[in-house]
Amino acid sequence: MLKLDNHPSGRHFLHIPGPSPAPARVLRAISFQTIDHRGPEFGQLGLKLLADMQKIFKTKHPVIIYPSSGTGAWEAALVNTLSAGDHVLMYETGQFATLWQKLADRLGIKTEFLGKPGAEGWRYGVDAAMIEERLKADTSHQIKAVCVVHNETSTGVTSNIAAVRKAIDAAKHPALLMVDTISGLASADYRHDEWGVDVTVSGSQKGLMLPPGLGFNALSPKALEANKTAKLPKAFWAWDEILESNKTGYWPTTPSTNLLYGLHEALDMILTEGLDNVFARHQRLAKACRAAVEAWGLEVQCKDPAVYSPVLTGVVTPEGVDADKLRKLIHERYNLSLGTGLGKVKGKMFRVGHLGDCNELALLGALSGCEMGMKAFGIKLKGSGVVAAQDLLL
Amino acid sequence: MLKLDNHPSGRHFLHIPGPSPAPARVLRAISFQTIDHRGPEFGQLGLKLLADMQKIFKTKHPVIIYPSSGTGAWEAALVNTLSAGDHVLMYETGQFATLWQKLADRLGIKTEFLGKPGAEGWRYGVDAAMIEERLKADTSHQIKAVCVVHNETSTGVTSNIAAVRKAIDAAKHPALLMVDTISGLASADYRHDEWGVDVTVSGSQKGLMLPPGLGFNALSPKALEANKTAKLPKAFWAWDEILESNKTGYWPTTPSTNLLYGLHEALDMILTEGLDNVFARHQRLAKACRAAVEAWGLEVQCKDPAVYSPVLTGVVTPEGVDADKLRKLIHERYNLSLGTGLGKVKGKMFRVGHLGDCNELALLGALSGCEMGMKAFGIKLKGSGVVAAQDLLL
Amino acid sequence: MLKLDNHPSGRHFLHIPGPSPAPARVLRAISFQTIDHRGPEFGQLGLKLLADMQKIFKTKHPVIIYPSSGTGAWEAALVNTLSAGDHVLMYETGQFATLWQKLADRLGIKTEFLGKPGAEGWRYGVDAAMIEERLKADTSHQIKAVCVVHNETSTGVTSNIAAVRKAIDAAKHPALLMVDTISGLASADYRHDEWGVDVTVSGSQKGLMLPPGLGFNALSPKALEANKTAKLPKAFWAWDEILESNKTGYWPTTPSTNLLYGLHEALDMILTEGLDNVFARHQRLAKACRAAVEAWGLEVQCKDPAVYSPVLTGVVTPEGVDADKLRKLIHERYNLSLGTGLGKVKGKMFRVGHLGDCNELALLGALSGCEMGMKAFGIKLKGSGVVAAQDLLL
Amino acid sequence: MLKLDNHPSGRHFLHIPGPSPAPARVLRAISFQTIDHRGPEFGQLGLKLLADMQKIFKTKHPVIIYPSSGTGAWEAALVNTLSAGDHVLMYETGQFATLWQKLADRLGIKTEFLGKPGAEGWRYGVDAAMIEERLKADTSHQIKAVCVVHNETSTGVTSNIAAVRKAIDAAKHPALLMVDTISGLASADYRHDEWGVDVTVSGSQKGLMLPPGLGFNALSPKALEANKTAKLPKAFWAWDEILESNKTGYWPTTPSTNLLYGLHEALDMILTEGLDNVFARHQRLAKACRAAVEAWGLEVQCKDPAVYSPVLTGVVTPEGVDADKLRKLIHERYNLSLGTGLGKVKGKMFRVGHLGDCNELALLGALSGCEMGMKAFGIKLKGSGVVAAQDLLL
Repeated sequence: MLKLDNHPSGRHFLHIPGPSPAPARVLRAISFQTIDHRGPEFGQLGLKLLADMQKIFKTKHPVIIYPSSGTGAWEAALVNTLSAGDHVLMYETGQFATLWQKLADRLGIKTEFLGKPGAEGWRYGVDAAMIEERLKADTSHQIKAVCVVHNETSTGVTSNIAAVRKAIDAAKHPALLMVDTISGLASADYRHDEWGVDVTVSGSQKGLMLPPGLGFNALSPKALEANKTAKLPKAFWAWDEILESNKTGYWPTTPSTNLLYGLHEALDMILTEGLDNVFARHQRLAKACRAAVEAWGLEVQCKDPAVYSPVLTGVVTPEGVDADKLRKLIHERYNLSLGTGLGKVKGKMFRVGHLGDCNELALLGALSGCEMGMKAFGIKLKGSGVVAAQDLLL
Repeated sequence: MLKLDNHPSGRHFLHIPGPSPAPARVLRAISFQTIDHRGPEFGQLGLKLLADMQKIFKTKHPVIIYPSSGTGAWEAALVNTLSAGDHVLMYETGQFATLWQKLADRLGIKTEFLGKPGAEGWRYGVDAAMIEERLKADTSHQIKAVCVVHNETSTGVTSNIAAVRKAIDAAKHPALLMVDTISGLASADYRHDEWGVDVTVSGSQKGLMLPPGLGFNALSPKALEANKTAKLPKAFWAWDEILESNKTGYWPTTPSTNLLYGLHEALDMILTEGLDNVFARHQRLAKACRAAVEAWGLEVQCKDPAVYSPVLTGVVTPEGVDADKLRKLIHERYNLSLGTGLGKVKGKMFRVGHLGDCNELALLGALSGCEMGMKAFGIKLKGSGVVAAQDLLL
Repeated sequence: MLKLDNHPSGRHFLHIPGPSPAPARVLRAISFQTIDHRGPEFGQLGLKLLADMQKIFKTKHPVIIYPSSGTGAWEAALVNTLSAGDHVLMYETGQFATLWQKLADRLGIKTEFLGKPGAEGWRYGVDAAMIEERLKADTSHQIKAVCVVHNETSTGVTSNIAAVRKAIDAAKHPALLMVDTISGLASADYRHDEWGVDVTVSGSQKGLMLPPGLGFNALSPKALEANKTAKLPKAFWAWDEILESNKTGYWPTTPSTNLLYGLHEALDMILTEGLDNVFARHQRLAKACRAAVEAWGLEVQCKDPAVYSPVLTGVVTPEGVDADKLRKLIHERYNLSLGTGLGKVKGKMFRVGHLGDCNELALLGALSGCEMGMKAFGIKLKGSGVVAAQDLLL
Repeated sequence: MLKLDNHPSGRHFLHIPGPSPAPARVLRAISFQTIDHRGPEFGQLGLKLLADMQKIFKTKHPVIIYPSSGTGAWEAALVNTLSAGDHVLMYETGQFATLWQKLADRLGIKTEFLGKPGAEGWRYGVDAAMIEERLKADTSHQIKAVCVVHNETSTGVTSNIAAVRKAIDAAKHPALLMVDTISGLASADYRHDEWGVDVTVSGSQKGLMLPPGLGFNALSPKALEANKTAKLPKAFWAWDEILESNKTGYWPTTPSTNLLYGLHEALDMILTEGLDNVFARHQRLAKACRAAVEAWGLEVQCKDPAVYSPVLTGVVTPEGVDADKLRKLIHERYNLSLGTGLGKVKGKMFRVGHLGDCNELALLGALSGCEMGMKAFGIKLKGSGVVAAQDLLL
């Protein structure tokens, strides 16, 4: 039989910043028997999901659902709007911004990568002024799109998307605005229409509390217009056939039926709780987590309080500590999974996920695991992070 | 749809002293399709379960599995071995000992209820000397059985069963020894044969990590002998037909097929971890829980360190605190279920379950819930119980 | 891992007359995490279930739900209403009537077993005239209860309960009327109040589409009155404490939480389809099954068309055929479970269940299995039963 | 709650040619909690899956697993081996061959579409001689790849892949051989290495008995060589990074964790039954299904007995019958889903799937549904297809 946990007993604490733990209700839903994706019941399901996903993105425009991971949705955003050799402005907030940039490069797009230098640059969100300045300099409008990450999963830093929109507008630049909120959607406040985003990219395994396997693109009329002239080859990702088929709740190719079942349940849970309540819950847990880090005498990876992530908290480990060895000890001893440091911060931090179906006691259990793990590893802590976190969760 | 949790999001922390949380693996097993309980596959399953249950009780003699709760197994133990008007010695360790005594009374058995007086008596285990003395006085051997509770679920106090056996032997008394370890089995060390128990009573929803619905009787040759002359009416509970049918792995009446599926998985988990490891894990968690209580400046209900329960810890709340109002606040605010005070200690304590599929972080999460709840309720705590508990779980 | 089917692939066809196949929705429900049976959510569930079960029994009086099998519910009906040595009139319609009678005997009740002689008697329902005659002869009202089986699972014969009620009334006899509809409830029309039944006994694993593990008693005011003076020892089965606790949706002892979850879903399915529609569906499938038997040139066990069971059909195998060897061949070759012949008809018949979550194609698949199996066994069939059954299901 | 079947009761018979019904064991597996796809347990799972998938494709070379549908795997095969404007030879066997050709066109590949003319062409497999002739004419080796469908899901016709290989070899042509066996894999015999296939494309929701959501590419050394110079843009689909990451059992981007759980179970089931036994079972069921069609007096869509599909059977409906209205009646009345006619045969046929977790009685139930449905629709049938099918399944 499938053996997925080497611990003999006790529940696993999954606190990586995604996949987040799927609620039992979602897991049961994905275990419903697969039905005919051309049958009458399926169309009803499809229409409901597409309508509800608009509420999640806060958009009146179409949302595309792919049977793919978030990486696929990154690719989809680009190939549907751009042509080979197009110049695109991206912004390095961390590892996932970097991976998106590399993916764009592989697709034959000419990327320019803004950002503050070095590992220190990974501790801040997008500097909209830099974008504005660069766009103003692009008087011939060579730049076709600006791509930024809303919630940088590798660092726990968000970016002010409204400010980026303002920067583009201030520069009177026609570039498309594309935003990755793979790990932010349904956890951090997000407003596709209000913020004037042209393509928002997301995935299922974070705030939507599903297993991985669904990717999303939320569109704008301007993105749909760009789609008509975009020349990068596309078929599986092509919006046009999907939008046509979606009108009646179906897909042109086989959708990921059982994950869509789970999406139905997750959307019902989120919309019943209320998006604003969901966001407030995430803010509250994130604040408690940061209080723990402070109490330990450690630093949060994000240096700008204005853009702390409500999804995850990056914890900088003391000089000389191999954060991955620490994570291994914590995993083996306390059955707790934490996120690794990636790229420029590899070995120097760990990440605590507090997104999706998380609550006070789950977070406090996880913080106890971090606290004991650090002690067992020989790290001197200033005080108890759990006690500090409790104070904020009373 | 079935709605079992009024909280909008986040996992429930179930820390009552049973039902304990069923592992996902057990829950999946009980959702297998029901099969023919007279078919060939069923007999294979039955034989395996009956053999493995002997390992759990540490007995070479038969174990009976009933499609009933633990209360049914109490009744079964009595009606299979006794006759109307038989005199039985019981011992008041708490609410469950009391309920067993009342049940015996209702069945027409003449019960004598030993024990220390008042609520204070509920803070100690069985005093074997009292039993020895009483049995010695019973020179005409009117007493047909001695009934004690191994792990008193209402208080978190265990009793020394080996000592009770010695007491009976010292009195050279022929009474049967019947023991309830409904909440102790597979969590606290238990040795049916070595301790000379004649009937052990247990249930599924505690250390066996199953939902409620299975009851157990482990037998001795002496119990089987008593069964031949016992005159209390019995049919559903009658051992004879069950034992006959069990020889080939079947039951004379319809067994609780799907709970037996779950039992199969739970037994595999327990025997793979190793009973001794399971017991050690429970002792460790219990010790950490008691350290938390001490750090809070509160008292553990059990006053005798020799018989602290590894299954649950009774926490005495300060004078003037309504423990049930506190539990309600904790449940509503932190999605944590704690056990209520029962009978003589109603409103004066709450119980923390740390049995079955529990681990360090689950317990620490629960203790954080208690700690925050007590603070929110206005209780002054001496210090952080969580930090004290962590020290023992490093 | 749990292995419950020795066939390498393909769905099992479970067509024994119970346990019937549990719908996926019910199986998922019983895999919900166990909750605190003393917590607020549980009481809401309990009240709903108790109210809905009244609709199923068609009664305004209380329904008792036991964490036990149907055999337990048989015992409960007797011990709650009778005293040792009480004289009870029972009627032999088949193996289950016989088992109930033996159970009553074991409990110290004096049973008198009416019925037509020999195996032939097992092909008819209760003859109400015999009951009336016997009751009229009992001028001193020694007979305290009349016990009959509504749907005799061993034969596929129902009995006219309204006629039994009339017989008792015609005899002006005060005996209680107790009815076993373990395998009839929610499949065959049943009216506890209208038919003046005092105690109806049922179970979960038949028309209620659940795994085994729940037993039911539906009561009448007269039964409750009898309960006050009944002297058979009882505790686990005692109605009084259960009724008291049920007022707020709880149970005095630990209920079978997860099976109650399944009951919630099953009741929702049945009441949504509508009881009358459920009954009509069963009648239709049963009629088709009998048409198959006739087309094969075989006999249905039930000889009285007025009382054919809508739940199952007993098929008499030709002289010289060992029905159990035939069933074995069918099971091994076609992954189809059929019911064995029991007691007086052992080896002479097999039983086809078409109850609960059954539909046309499932039945026709099963009938194909019977048809091929009989051919493979060397039985000459007059014609195709499947084709005949299809004609009635068009 | 999710409502996926408008029928009030009874199991749905899913007999479209994919998604095939997922076994309960697979559905339970995909409901395991999602784990860290960078954690130690995941790597063990990944290595096992990749090794077992080689057994399924019968290859010693790498297999790629995508979190995507089969359409994605089509695209992956092309973009990893070809450059814009490359000339590719495809063969029209039916709708899915046509869709693959259109997808290639959209990607900027120059496709040439061989095949017999008209709807009649859809009743035969690939004519290898036509391919050989065309390749011989291509003396300058403009043709970079030959793409054929192994099991054409729209018609129930397979193609002789070994013959296509021979044709290419006979023409001494260096073109790559790419084969779609999305609906054939693990149902129809398939030999990636022996048949000299360079890229085999497949998906999860057919013979692998999973829900949709996984796509596969099996590679050859020649395909890997072509990959080095292929210039179509690719990132998400790029083999190189995946192969690198797969060495240790991981993926470069987030895999579809929970579907991989299901794949683990499905592979265990298939390899335990034995691939040859799985193939023989499919052949047997397919033969029985064709016997039913013949008995009805109807035609099978496939006209060449050498290439009948073991996966599904296309049933040509009589002139004047709207096959989709018939399917609708059957679905509503008998809770049976059949495949629609696609493209050139729309409205003129229906398809019966008998793949994956299918067995005798499931197929016979489905054939009863077809038979009754056609009668109810007013179609005159020559005889009973079910009886004819039974004869072959005895």
